[in-house]
Parts: sequence; structure tokens; C-alpha cells
Amino acid sequence: MKKIISALLSLTMLAGILVGCGVQAADVQEESTNEMSAAVTQDAAMKTPKYVFLFIGDGMSYPQIQSTADYLGALQDEDYWQAQPSLDDNAGAILDGPEYLNFMNFEAAGSAVTYDSNSFAPDSASTATSIATGKKTYSGSINVDETGTKEYETIAEKLHEQKDYSVGVITSVNLNHATPAAFYAHQASRNDYYEIGLELIDSGFEYFAGGGLLSPDGAEGDQENLYDLAEQAGYQVVNTQAAAEAITEDDDKVIVIDEHLADSDAMAYELDRTDDMWSLADYVEKGVEVLSDDKDGFFLMCEGGKIDWACHANDAASTIHDTVALADAVQVAIDFAEEHPNDTLILVTGDHETGGLTIGFAGTDYDTYLDLLANQKISFAKYDSDYVAGYKANKTPFEEVLKDIEELFGLKTQGEEGDKLVLTPYELEQLRAAYEKSVNGTAASQYEQEEYVLYGTYEPLSVTITHIINNKSGVSFTSYSHTGLPVAVLAQGVNAGVCNGYYDNTEVCEKLADMLKVR
Amino acid sequence: MKKIISALLSLTMLAGILVGCGVQAADVQEESTNEMSAAVTQDAAMKTPKYVFLFIGDGMSYPQIQSTADYLGALQDEDYWQAQPSLDDNAGAILDGPEYLNFMNFEAAGSAVTYDSNSFAPDSASTATSIATGKKTYSGSINVDETGTKEYETIAEKLHEQKDYSVGVITSVNLNHATPAAFYAHQASRNDYYEIGLELIDSGFEYFAGGGLLSPDGAEGDQENLYDLAEQAGYQVVNTQAAAEAITEDDDKVIVIDEHLADSDAMAYELDRTDDMWSLADYVEKGVEVLSDDKDGFFLMCEGGKIDWACHANDAASTIHDTVALADAVQVAIDFAEEHPNDTLILVTGDHETGGLTIGFAGTDYDTYLDLLANQKISFAKYDSDYVAGYKANKTPFEEVLKDIEELFGLKTQGEEGDKLVLTPYELEQLRAAYEKSVNGTAASQYEQEEYVLYGTYEPLSVTITHIINNKSGVSFTSYSHTGLPVAVLAQGVNAGVCNGYYDNTEVCEKLADMLKVR
Repeated sequence: MKKIISALLSLTMLAGILVGCGVQAADVQEESTNEMSAAVTQDAAMKTPKYVFLFIGDGMSYPQIQSTADYLGALQDEDYWQAQPSLDDNAGAILDGPEYLNFMNFEAAGSAVTYDSNSFAPDSASTATSIATGKKTYSGSINVDETGTKEYETIAEKLHEQKDYSVGVITSVNLNHATPAAFYAHQASRNDYYEIGLELIDSGFEYFAGGGLLSPDGAEGDQENLYDLAEQAGYQVVNTQAAAEAITEDDDKVIVIDEHLADSDAMAYELDRTDDMWSLADYVEKGVEVLSDDKDGFFLMCEGGKIDWACHANDAASTIHDTVALADAVQVAIDFAEEHPNDTLILVTGDHETGGLTIGFAGTDYDTYLDLLANQKISFAKYDSDYVAGYKANKTPFEEVLKDIEELFGLKTQGEEGDKLVLTPYELEQLRAAYEKSVNGTAASQYEQEEYVLYGTYEPLSVTITHIINNKSGVSFTSYSHTGLPVAVLAQGVNAGVCNGYYDNTEVCEKLADMLKVR
Repeated sequence: MKKIISALLSLTMLAGILVGCGVQAADVQEESTNEMSAAVTQDAAMKTPKYVFLFIGDGMSYPQIQSTADYLGALQDEDYWQAQPSLDDNAGAILDGPEYLNFMNFEAAGSAVTYDSNSFAPDSASTATSIATGKKTYSGSINVDETGTKEYETIAEKLHEQKDYSVGVITSVNLNHATPAAFYAHQASRNDYYEIGLELIDSGFEYFAGGGLLSPDGAEGDQENLYDLAEQAGYQVVNTQAAAEAITEDDDKVIVIDEHLADSDAMAYELDRTDDMWSLADYVEKGVEVLSDDKDGFFLMCEGGKIDWACHANDAASTIHDTVALADAVQVAIDFAEEHPNDTLILVTGDHETGGLTIGFAGTDYDTYLDLLANQKISFAKYDSDYVAGYKANKTPFEEVLKDIEELFGLKTQGEEGDKLVLTPYELEQLRAAYEKSVNGTAASQYEQEEYVLYGTYEPLSVTITHIINNKSGVSFTSYSHTGLPVAVLAQGVNAGVCNGYYDNTEVCEKLADMLKVR
């Protein structure tokens, strides 16, 4: 019987490729009638989920997921780490292992390959295009082909128009950033924020929430304000938590901007969020409320966008906290699915890996000390804005800076024997060189190439601090950009099993389009 | 119907946990009668594969698999790379993407979490113990518990004894190395090669092939020779290809040692193998011939062990070639399965990730130039033995060494504009420092910590060369040890679907034991 099911699924997947998303009518006509009939037949056999949650951890692949699970496991396992065993002296202690994130326990888990039309290390615009339309394109392009002229309709648009589904788009970064944009916009350049904002308004989608709109007055500041245009188009735009709370399922089209916008009009890093600030989960909860109206169903995309930003900056602690924030947001969907078990599909995936994060580092060999990351109390970005800017302005002495570093990151110049947070002479020298570069502009190397590998385009002091705390914890990064690792595709609920396998990221869309029966 | 199957599978997996491998009789009695009955019922519902192939890429996780596929894709895609497009200037070229390895197309693909009893970055002994027995143990231990006293029976032993399956163990490294040993030996320390060798002989398994036996005369050289003991125990031991070819299915118990043993009595790196030398695939082919006798079935484990060794040394080109060699070996199983489609299960997995390999590097950002790796003509190990040893003895001048480096790795001091293999001043300086360290013992840094990150315990010159060619190609490593990334579990054939999901590596064994009905 399993063999039959397996064959059926394979056929259905093939059908998805033929009639799934992004394929134009003309293309479909090229397929043989036989294939079409088979496709339609198989389509009909699949149950259509009424409620679809798609969570995208931007920059989240296996390293981000697993390191978060390992970190949470390490924190739970104090007995083990208190014993400070080494591989040579286990002292009888036994490691409990990772604490699985909720979505790691999903019934289906596949891998999606992420290359785009010009890179094995693709960007968020092209990869989100693949997820939203089933098409490849160049890095930087959103839902257009490689010539930048032919537009692809997204699965969210199709569901909205053909199936009368409500649509919600949530992100922890700005709402006209590449990933959220890939569900409603069509632009050759992801940097055309204003044009993307116009498409957001045109989409008519019921719910947008999270970060703000970048360039609301256009690149030159001379365009009609996007928020004004949104209100003219019938959107209720709110930017306080009180107003957000007042929104109910009776509200038709809302844009909820986070009250505490941080860097680049994004929500704050989870590490910097205080209990009184809304979390990504809160926006999902409100979204479910707004979208659960009298429509035929809903499609809710929620991006954990700051996982990517933290990985770009090689900030492991912020990465882990934002991955936890995403899992918390997923929990809202899991709770919803428990109420609607026969109608809900939850998908959790990434668009690409960012940073080349590894759970392991040359300097610590087989040892990891992930609990040390708990000493980091602030994201690199908040440290940049709230501290380093002041160091530069005031030429704060290095010794004063070291005090902040100890308070905010736990790294210290002296401590008890065996204290793993004590800086070695080499690390102190790295910090000093980075401080000199950040505060006094002193080159850290005679080779620009070496400096770029050391700091990328980040604040030398901040990125050196996170590099050191990362490495002491036994993790490391190789890049300030994206990498070519496949991403996990985890699924729970209606038709979850189709997400098993090792396949191209365009198939994520094809599988969805297939079961949702949109063309 | 799918729901039923899914529930059935879940139950079956649970059953596997209860009655699967490594669980002693006493433990089983602790389980309730109800659970036992359920387990037996579900067990009975699963078809038992007659032929089981288990391929383990040592150190092979997603980065090793995907980078190999990307490299092969890049080589196929000459038009694209000839145009040398950058992300800023695509020149209309479109990347074809990766060339999937055969096992990437398998019907099932899951992820296994690899931590062991004392590390998130576990070793091959403990992880192979998990795969072979369904149990966790300390790094360095083989099929014993954390006290080093309680032995776990392996799935290969159970099949051999309880089910009359023939068993074969193949590896590209030495036959008493941790991974192959985990299918027949039980030792608190993986370094007790002689004792492991004795257990190999005691196993009575029908086929051993690949590398040689390390320490055949014991650690002190005063023990009875392992090969002699093997022959006394009824094994036919051969160490030439001609003798290996003469072996047929009529031979009962054979040990086939590679004729061209390289470093540490392992087979040569695939990159160094010439066409006249047997490949890993050849040993699988011979194994199938030997094992396809009148027994009730066979279990054949084949390790691609030098993937790990290459990653330890941060040698990306050797890693990729040995991953291709593993895929070639898998092809033998795929061909066999075509003849026996209803009786064969093929599993391909890794034991852990090694090296923290990433498809991406800070210095190349979003660009990769994987085709550059084709310029490397020799493994780091063969370069060490055939070249660097001579440099040291003869104090070969740096300029002479550079000529070899250009011939063997493609890296050059001058070339046409845009030639990506030309060394930058920074890279040349890195090479010079490494040369001085290797040849004259001159410290490359005042900080030992920095030197360790630069070179690990490897030959400074060799590892610096591979670091540079890696980085120019757009790949990088973060460690000389293992990392905590989960590994892929890819399956094709009978019950392949049970390998879907994100689960602990002990479940690989449990799933196998469940369907093979061994206790």
C-alpha cells in the first residue's frame, strides 16, 4: 500500500511541476494532453489545506536550527557543563544533547537546494521568488525573469484572486524587504523600495505586520508618502501596540507597524527585545485573528528576517535568539492547527544559509561551550548604535571600552583559572586592533584583503567581539554573505509528506500550488 | 489513506524504539506488554529487505554533498563560467546549477542529529556506534556504554547470527578504523587497533575490503600477526588486484587489502588514484559478488572514509573527489537494486560533518568559482609525502616550491588580467610564512593560538595552499575537527520512507532493526 502511495505522491509532484505556480498558460498548452489529464486527476486526489502557514527563516539553514537547539540543550544541561568535562576527562557526566525546536519535530523534513540564476550563494530576492513562484531568477530580482521584464504571479496572489483566501505577510525586518516583497511585488531590483511599497498597497492583501516601510517618500524623498497612499487605498495603518491590540477580525485591511522600530526600520533583534515589546509571535497571533474571517481560508507568510541580518554580522547569539523567536511564532500556528487539524498546513523553511555558520571552530576542536553565548546581552547592531558611536565621538579609551565589553558580552581581561571568558593575549590584541580601526581608523593589516576577511563591511570592534565570543563558544562563521548550503523544509499537517526529499527550492512552490490547486 | 499510512509509520517507528537494536533483553522486559504487542504487530507489517546497503560518508554532511554537486555542475556549465559574469554584470548568462549526485535523487531524505555522550561535535567511533547499535556513547568508544564495560551488539552481528545474512564491510581507510570497526568490534578506545583487528577476525563476516589493518603486530609490535591469525581463522587474505579479481562467490570469507595502500594504510585519495587502481566502487562490486551466495540475504556497509580525512586537512578538492568516489560506489548498489527492486534497501548517510565546510567565503562574498578546484591535481597527503618531505630535507628555495605549487595546484605568481589563480600579495605572504614554518620551523605568529587556527596540526605549507585554493574557489573551512551539523540520511528501496524526518542518529539503527526484525 505504501508503494502505491509513494507512486501517487511522485506522480502528484510531477503534476505539480507541469501545472504548478509560475507556469504561464502558454507553457501549459505545450504539455501533452495526457500529462495534463494525469495532473488534474492527481490534483483532485490531494486535500486542499484551508489554512496555510509559511514561515521563512531568512538565512536559516541546518546550522542555524541545530545551533539553536544545541544552545538550548546546553543551557538545560547545567550539571554537565558545571563539571566542565573535556573529551579526555568525562568525569562520568553525560551530555543530554539538543533541545529540539518545535518545528524540528514536524512529521516531514526535506532539503531544498537554493542556487539562483547567477550564484550558488544566492540572495533573498531570487530565493523568495523561487518559493513564491516556482521560478529561478537573478540575485536581486523579485518575481521577474532574468531579462527583468516578464513578471511571475505569486502563490499568495493566486490564492487571493482565484481562491478568495485572505493573505497575511509578516516580517521582523522592513515590510518592503526582499522576502516579504516576493509574495506581492515584481521588480527587477530589490532596492526599489518605494515601487515595492506601491505594490504592497496594490496587493489588497488583508494583513501586513512587523517592520516599517523603507523609503516611504521614495529614494529622493519627493514621492507621495506610502503610508498615506495605503490609507487612501483602504488600509488601516497603526504603529502603536495599543492600536494593534484594538484590531480585530472585523478589520479588513491592516498594516501594523512595530512601535519599537530598530535598525533599518526593522523590529528589534530578539536579544534586545524587552518583555513589554511585541514579539514576532504576537504579530502572528494578531494575523490569525484578522485573517480568520469569513473568507475561504488564509495564507500567512511570516519571515524571521533578522536571523539573516545577525548571521551577516557573524553575531551567533543574536542569530540564536531570533531563531527562537521564529520558533515561538511557529508555536502560534501549531496551537491554531490543534484547533483545525484537518485543514491546516504549516511549513517552516529558510531561503538560504547566511554566514557559513558552523557548530565547531578550529581553536576549540571537538569542544563546544555554547552556554557562553548566554553572556552576550546585546545585539551587534544595538552595540554599534548605543556604544560604538559614542566611543568614536568621545575617543573613549580602550580600557573603558573593555569594561563595557565585559558587562555586555562577558569577555574579561582577568578571572579565575579555567574561566573560559578570560581573553587570551591573542584575543586582546585582536580586540585592540579592531578598537583602533573603529575609533581611530588605524589599519589593522597592510593588506586590504586581510582586513576584509576580518571585518567585512561591519564595525571592526563589534564584529571582532562577536567573533571572539563565538569562537570561545565553539562556533564560527566563514562569510559575511550567503552560502550555498541547502535549507531544511519542515512540514506539519495536510499533505506535509510531500515536503520530504532533497529537491530544488522551486519545488516548494510547486508542491504548495499543487495541493492548493492554483494555476 | 495517506493519513493511515503516516500513522502506521509513526507507530512503527515507535515500535522500533522499543524493540530495536542495542536494547538488552532486560530492558525490553521493562516495557509494558501492550507496547510489546503493538511493536510486534507493526513489525510484522513491514517488509524485510533481503539486501541492505549502508553507505557512510565519513565527515559527509550537507556541505560535502552539495559542494560536490555544485562543483560538478560548475564543470558542466563552461559557457557560464567562460563569460565570467559577476553579480553586477550577468551578461545574460544563466547558471545551470548543481549536478545532483545519484543518492540526492533517492526517494527519501531525512536529517540525523549527531551529538554523542560528551560532545555536540562528536567523533566517528561514537556516531558509528549510534548507527550500528542505536546507542549513544562517549567520543572514542566503539559499541560500549559510557563506563566502557557494557557491550552493545551491532546490527551487522545480529543479522549475521539471527538471520543468516552475509555481512560485508568496506572502507577506503584502514579496516580497523572506527567506522568499519563499529560494525564488528566493542572497545572503549578506538585506538586499540590490534584488539579491534582481533574482533574483525572473530566476527566471521564474509567480506572485508579496502584499506589494510593498522598495527597488525600490536602496538608494541610483539603480538601474533593479524593477517596470519585471519588466515588461521579461515579467511583468505589477498592484497593484489589480480588476486582480488580471482575471488568469486564460491569464496566464503575473504579480506581484500588494496594493492596501493597510501597514508595510514588507507586507500589512496580518489584525487591521487590512477585508472589502473581499484576504486571504492570496485570493492563494492566484488563484495556483491562474494555476498550473493546462498545465504538469506546480505548487509553491506561501505565507508567513504577519506572524505573525513580530506576535510580534517581542509582539502576541498580531495573532499569532493572522494565524495564522487562514494557516489560511484553507491551506483553499484543502485544497479544491483534494479535487478532486485523488491528486496533491496540502499541507505546513504554520514556520521558527522568534518571541517565546517561552507560553500561561500568572506573574501568572495556571493561569488563562487568552484571550477578552480579542478586545478588541484594532488591530495594534501601525497603533496606532503612526495614533495614537502623533500623540501625539508633539501631546504628547497621558496621560488622552486612555487613552481611545484603552480603545477600541482594552479596557483601562480603572475598571469593574465582576470586570472583568478594569480596569488595576491597577501596570499603570497601567507604562503611564504607557511613555507618558512614548514621548511625552517620559523614561527608564523607570536601567538600559538593564531598558529593553531592557521595550520592545526597539519603541514603549514600544504594546508595554506589548500586554504588559498579553497578560498579563491569560494569555499572555506572553520575547523580541523568535526562539527555539530546534522547529516543527511538518503534512502531508496524497501521501506525507504521511514528515513524521512529530522531525528536522532540512533534512530537510523532503530529504523533498520525494526524492518529487519532483529532484536
